[in-house]
Amino acid sequence: MTSQDIATHVLDEAVALEPIGENLFRGRTHEAYANMIGPFGGTTAATMLNAVLQHPGRHGDPLALTLNYAGPVADGEFVIEARPARTNRSNQHWWIEMRQGDEVVTTATALTGLRRETWSETEAAPPVVPAPEDLSPTGADRGVRWVDNYDMRFVTGGWDDVASGEENPESTTTMWIRDVPTRDLDHVALTSMCDSFFPRAFLRLGRPVPAGTVTLTIHFLATADEIAAQGTDFLLGSVHSHRFHGNYHDEAARLWSRDGRLLATGTQLMYFKG
Amino acid sequence: MTSQDIATHVLDEAVALEPIGENLFRGRTHEAYANMIGPFGGTTAATMLNAVLQHPGRHGDPLALTLNYAGPVADGEFVIEARPARTNRSNQHWWIEMRQGDEVVTTATALTGLRRETWSETEAAPPVVPAPEDLSPTGADRGVRWVDNYDMRFVTGGWDDVASGEENPESTTTMWIRDVPTRDLDHVALTSMCDSFFPRAFLRLGRPVPAGTVTLTIHFLATADEIAAQGTDFLLGSVHSHRFHGNYHDEAARLWSRDGRLLATGTQLMYFKG
Repeated sequence: MTSQDIATHVLDEAVALEPIGENLFRGRTHEAYANMIGPFGGTTAATMLNAVLQHPGRHGDPLALTLNYAGPVADGEFVIEARPARTNRSNQHWWIEMRQGDEVVTTATALTGLRRETWSETEAAPPVVPAPEDLSPTGADRGVRWVDNYDMRFVTGGWDDVASGEENPESTTTMWIRDVPTRDLDHVALTSMCDSFFPRAFLRLGRPVPAGTVTLTIHFLATADEIAAQGTDFLLGSVHSHRFHGNYHDEAARLWSRDGRLLATGTQLMYFKG
Repeated sequence: MTSQDIATHVLDEAVALEPIGENLFRGRTHEAYANMIGPFGGTTAATMLNAVLQHPGRHGDPLALTLNYAGPVADGEFVIEARPARTNRSNQHWWIEMRQGDEVVTTATALTGLRRETWSETEAAPPVVPAPEDLSPTGADRGVRWVDNYDMRFVTGGWDDVASGEENPESTTTMWIRDVPTRDLDHVALTSMCDSFFPRAFLRLGRPVPAGTVTLTIHFLATADEIAAQGTDFLLGSVHSHRFHGNYHDEAARLWSRDGRLLATGTQLMYFKG
C-alpha cells in the first residue's frame, strides 16, 4: 500500500521541472494527461505547486493554492516563475506565473506554512457510501486521455448520468479516486485530484457542453503527515454546484481519506455555455 | 430603498484610491473600519478590488477575487499595484499587490469578465429564516470598531454564543447584514460583507481565540445588474467550517438576496490558536 508501482510515476514525469534561473523553472506538457485541448487542468495546477515545492527558499508545507487558468496551455514547453512575495516566521506567500513565449497562460498564488497541534475537529463528515472494492471502475470512454490515469469509481452522479441525455435535478457527484498506476499520495497528487471532477453543467444538463475551469482554489486541511499516511489508498471525493448563471457556475469539492479525514477542499468557478 | 443616506458613504471613503502612475494607486486605512490590529480585512479586500474597478484598462465585471493577507496592514498609507496579467476576448486576469514601504502586505488575483444569458439555476436554496425586521440588531460590543458599520441580525450562531463560554457543536452562523448607514450594494460592498463573519473557532470553542484570515476567495455568482438591484436591502449570509486542524480552519460562506438569489460565495482559510 505504501510502495509505488513503478520507479518514476507518469504524474511525476508530467510535473517535472528543471531549474533554469532564480525563481525560474522549465517544464513541458505530457501527452498522457492530454485534455480536449491542451493539458488536464489538474496537472497544470500540480505543476504550478511543484515549482513552489522545488524552490530552495520554500518555508513550510502547502496550505492554500489559487490557480487562474488565464489562457489555453499549448502542448510543449513552458516556463514557470515562482517567487516568494513575503516570508513570515510561520508562513510564506507565493506568486506563480506560467508563460509560453510572451503569453501568460496561468497565474497562481500559494501559501505555505508550518503547523502545530491545536484543537482539532472534522465537522463535515463524509457521505455514507459503499467501499471502493464494492464498486466498478468507470469503463466509459470519455474521449479525453487524462482520465486513464485515474481509477474513478462513481457512487452518485457518474458519467452514465451525463451520457443519458436527460437533465438531472442535482449536481452532486460522489466518487472514489486514485492514481493509475497507484502512487503514494502527496500534495502534488492531491492537487491534481481536486480538479478531477467533470463539469457540473454536464450533469445538470445531461450532456457535455462547452465548459472549463477559470479559477480553482484548494485549501489543504490535512497536515503533510496525514496526506503521506494515505499511501496508495482511494480518496472519497464529493462535489456540487451552488449556482449556474450568466456563463459561469461554481463547484465545491471535498476530498476525504477512507477513515473520514477531510484532506482538502477545492472551490472552482467554471465557464460554461448551455 | 435605492438612494444612499449620505453623499459620500464611509465605505467609499475607506476604499478611495488616488491614481499615482501606471497600474499604481495610493490609499490609506480608515479609522472607522479599525479591527483589533490594523484595518478590517473586508475593507482591505474591497480596496484591492477597487483598484481593478478604477483601472482604465478593465474589461468586464468582477467574477472572482482571491485575497492573501500576507502580513499586518499598518494604519496609514499604502500603495496598490493592479496589473492585467492577460486580457482575453471575454475575460481578464489581474495581479494585485498592496505594499507599505518595502513590505508586501496583501497579494491578490482577480478575474473580470463579460457575461451572457445561459441556462440558469440556483441549486443552493437559502435557509428558512425570519425576516430581518423580525430580529433585533446585534447590541453587544465586540470590542472592534468596524462592526459598527454593519447592521447584523443573527438568526443562529450569534455573538451571544461566543460570549457564553461554552463549546458549540456546530460552526454555523446565519445572519442578515447590511451597511450602516445604508448604501446601495455593489461589488465593493459585497466583497467586504464576504469577510464580515467572526471566526468559526470562536463559535465552536465558545470564546474568542487568536485567529485571522490568511486567504479569502470570493466567487461572484450574480451579475452586476442583480447586485445593483439589491439597493440597500439586507443580505442573508450563512457560514460554516468543514475542518479545524493544525492551526488552521476553513470557512465556507454564502450570501443570498432576500428573494433567494445566491450573490456570492466566500471561502477562507483562517489561522487560529486554541
